[in-house]
Amino acid sequence: MTSFHGQHSIAGTRRGGPATFAATCPLDGTTLPGRFCLATTSDADDAVRAAAAAFPTFAAASGLARATLLEGIAEEILALGDGLIDRARRETALPEARLVGERGRTVGQLRLFAALARDGSWCDARIDPAQPDRQPLPRADIRRVKVPLGPVIVFGSSNFPLAFSVAGGDTASALATGNPVVVKAHRGHPGTSELVAGAIERAVAAAGLPAGIFSLLHGEGATIGIALVEHPHAAAVGFTGSRAGGRALVDAAARRLHPIPVFAEMSSLNPVFMLPGALAARAEAIATGFVASMTLGVGQFCTKPGLVVGIEGPDFARFRGLLATAVSQAQPGRMLTGDILAAYRRGSAALVASPGTALLATGIMAGETDAVPQVAATSAAAFLAERRLGEEVFGPASLVVSAATRDEMLAVARHLDGQLTATVHGTPADLEGSADLLAILATRAGRLIVNAFPTGVEVGHAMQHGGPWPATSDPRFTSVGSAAAERFVRPVCWQDVPDALLPPALQNDNPLGLLRLVDGKPTRDRVG
Amino acid sequence: MTSFHGQHSIAGTRRGGPATFAATCPLDGTTLPGRFCLATTSDADDAVRAAAAAFPTFAAASGLARATLLEGIAEEILALGDGLIDRARRETALPEARLVGERGRTVGQLRLFAALARDGSWCDARIDPAQPDRQPLPRADIRRVKVPLGPVIVFGSSNFPLAFSVAGGDTASALATGNPVVVKAHRGHPGTSELVAGAIERAVAAAGLPAGIFSLLHGEGATIGIALVEHPHAAAVGFTGSRAGGRALVDAAARRLHPIPVFAEMSSLNPVFMLPGALAARAEAIATGFVASMTLGVGQFCTKPGLVVGIEGPDFARFRGLLATAVSQAQPGRMLTGDILAAYRRGSAALVASPGTALLATGIMAGETDAVPQVAATSAAAFLAERRLGEEVFGPASLVVSAATRDEMLAVARHLDGQLTATVHGTPADLEGSADLLAILATRAGRLIVNAFPTGVEVGHAMQHGGPWPATSDPRFTSVGSAAAERFVRPVCWQDVPDALLPPALQNDNPLGLLRLVDGKPTRDRVG
Repeated sequence: MTSFHGQHSIAGTRRGGPATFAATCPLDGTTLPGRFCLATTSDADDAVRAAAAAFPTFAAASGLARATLLEGIAEEILALGDGLIDRARRETALPEARLVGERGRTVGQLRLFAALARDGSWCDARIDPAQPDRQPLPRADIRRVKVPLGPVIVFGSSNFPLAFSVAGGDTASALATGNPVVVKAHRGHPGTSELVAGAIERAVAAAGLPAGIFSLLHGEGATIGIALVEHPHAAAVGFTGSRAGGRALVDAAARRLHPIPVFAEMSSLNPVFMLPGALAARAEAIATGFVASMTLGVGQFCTKPGLVVGIEGPDFARFRGLLATAVSQAQPGRMLTGDILAAYRRGSAALVASPGTALLATGIMAGETDAVPQVAATSAAAFLAERRLGEEVFGPASLVVSAATRDEMLAVARHLDGQLTATVHGTPADLEGSADLLAILATRAGRLIVNAFPTGVEVGHAMQHGGPWPATSDPRFTSVGSAAAERFVRPVCWQDVPDALLPPALQNDNPLGLLRLVDGKPTRDRVG
Repeated sequence: MTSFHGQHSIAGTRRGGPATFAATCPLDGTTLPGRFCLATTSDADDAVRAAAAAFPTFAAASGLARATLLEGIAEEILALGDGLIDRARRETALPEARLVGERGRTVGQLRLFAALARDGSWCDARIDPAQPDRQPLPRADIRRVKVPLGPVIVFGSSNFPLAFSVAGGDTASALATGNPVVVKAHRGHPGTSELVAGAIERAVAAAGLPAGIFSLLHGEGATIGIALVEHPHAAAVGFTGSRAGGRALVDAAARRLHPIPVFAEMSSLNPVFMLPGALAARAEAIATGFVASMTLGVGQFCTKPGLVVGIEGPDFARFRGLLATAVSQAQPGRMLTGDILAAYRRGSAALVASPGTALLATGIMAGETDAVPQVAATSAAAFLAERRLGEEVFGPASLVVSAATRDEMLAVARHLDGQLTATVHGTPADLEGSADLLAILATRAGRLIVNAFPTGVEVGHAMQHGGPWPATSDPRFTSVGSAAAERFVRPVCWQDVPDALLPPALQNDNPLGLLRLVDGKPTRDRVG
């Protein structure tokens, strides 16, 4: 059995402290092995200072060195073997198969960002060569490349103990572009966090990079988390969690003497719009697929569909019945923590207590410790009148909204807050007549999906995981896929700088073989 | 003589109001023709609502339509002829030649963004085609493209009545990418603003685009400016002005229910570092060039060099003497407004009143109405001890800092706040030994310059005009050059959407002929 030291990792050194906590297993309520320290603001200060001290060296490291680091982290995580999966399962109640899949995704992300670090495309090199003979004034030689921002504070999430936590997408994209990382571990899975932090430490050492580029602290978000965000050397923040938690970090970052960017993923209803032809043609398959997506991982995905909208009529009434049948057969499930279960119970009860809203069906009943899936139903008029119906309930709950007319369905679409995703089910004829609906949804969501379900976020080059507030705090960026690397960089322009002193990305000979924008035209050719 | 209606332009319609003000000519203190209305919050509400109403149509307009609009604005501005230049000169005291040059730059910017709108490269199209046979799970078809954010609030600046005002870079880059614009005119040049707004209105009408995509309001930043930023339909903000003004807007945007991005350019010292070889070889030329850059436009450029740093010794002492000589021959000048002159006098007096700091030289004396150039001198120790010495004085003032050692010069570099630019003068041998200095400066500034002066910001593809706080509120973006268009867009991902319903940028046939990232590889080929 794995044993846990329970200490913080600050720049490769273990750091203890007097106050500790233990993890509780949501599966059986037992206390899991390991006492984990609670960080002080002094620990936070040391971690961010170490990151700042390591930053110049790491920023100057080659893409190859950073790729080696990321691939090393992937290997070290795999080398943790079953111990990691077992501890994560006991800390989160997520099934083994899901965690094995999540580990694969985490390792895949690390390798994707390793490839990005190696190819250097993220630096967006641009060169406007000198024009000494230009009239009326000569043009200077101007070259621009993106550089890392500095220490990035990453908050581990509750619902993805691997893929959005210590070595998750935020950490991978920050490291790939040369930013040191300080992780605030999630309280729900400190043992998993310690194991992954050890993997990162070993990979940092093996790559010969400064230990300060990575630290892990255990502690309270409200104290140590805010202290990290307020630290003068913190340069950016990545967070996946609740709306209130994200807002607190965004506000703390905005109050700073020098505000810094916060990439917070906070909440999303992930609405699903049902068009008439699809309702008529394949209501059964959609109802089954919807309930599977909604109950996947006990509804604890950020892309869980929490709303389904259609035009009232016999087909939609039938679809509602099919949803009710499917939900009534859905299994209850253990949530990540007792607090999350309690919040789910309050939220799902509030849904059906809202005026004009009624319970449609619940899943198979369970004891005190499990979350029971629930679908409620309401009218578009009630939905438009009560803003709280448009807020996410984290867990396996969803709301069916009946619009009286197509116009009212469009009004529901326009009424929506920002979303990670929006989905439309329709036949080709349905879709042909729905450009207006898609156009509205494109203003509300980061990802539009046709005839599929929102859970399952592909890690690729074209993914956008981020939408208007409150889905995320900055819809101009994605937290999933290679474009996530754009979050932690800024451009610097070099004017009339001798070739030998330029960053390699900007040198005449193009030693990195980059596709560069030269006088506005993409080319891999040398310059001058 | 041009006459002025003095009203707001709200979506192509004139709107008056009871309270008015007039512009004062800083050249002679006379009141200029025209009484201009002060906008109410109701006017602001109408303007932003009109922008939001026009947004879907404008967002769906072709790049060609937007290019036609921007070129039309350029033509209409040129058609205003001498009347525009004359009014701007009388509202700002800027010389005719400078204003003619600034008009050229403004028109050039509009045409650059027209070209960008036409070629569509800003939309960063990415396609990860479906992989139906992938194991263990098939991959969906995922395509991503950038779309406009929505109504952009633009604040006219005092010091660039054309290039950073009503039809300046913020407006041009917002319109190029499909965002409606609401401009809050600067109080210093309402007549110039009215003339340019008329040019935009005519171009909007000629392009057949909805009038709501442009509005102009006159009024107070503290009331109407904040109301615009707080408006629920405002999507982003562009501002060039004071540090206090920028901070107020950033804070207002951060307090919103749904925070929005603010691109504020606020203040910069634009430090110049003098290396020993350059001091020995060409102190005269550098001193002359420095004073010319510092006094250009009465020191009212955001890139005015306000700090010069060197290692104390006979060569630096001689350079200080040359600076003193050059400054003592510099002409006084009329500033943009009486308030700006008063602030310059306070700021330049405070510089020399700081402990350890002394007056080095002033320019040719003038009456009450002109600003006199000033250079002060201090030690690195005093500079490091007094943070206020590191704050911009807007106007023709600069501070010479003597470091006792090279290490102390590096300490000054590290101590600097964020900057728009940082400059180094050195011989090839100086520069070869200064990679450490350049590396520090790259963390402090958006643009590094070798052996030239910071004034004069090229409008191209590789320009970066924006640095860490307080130079700008978001160093990840530039406000000058084609990359400025990246500020007002966000990506949207389309998953499994039928080809005909995709935005043209993402369709299989690549009808816009874009360079797209397909499976991570740049190509103009069709897909599928």
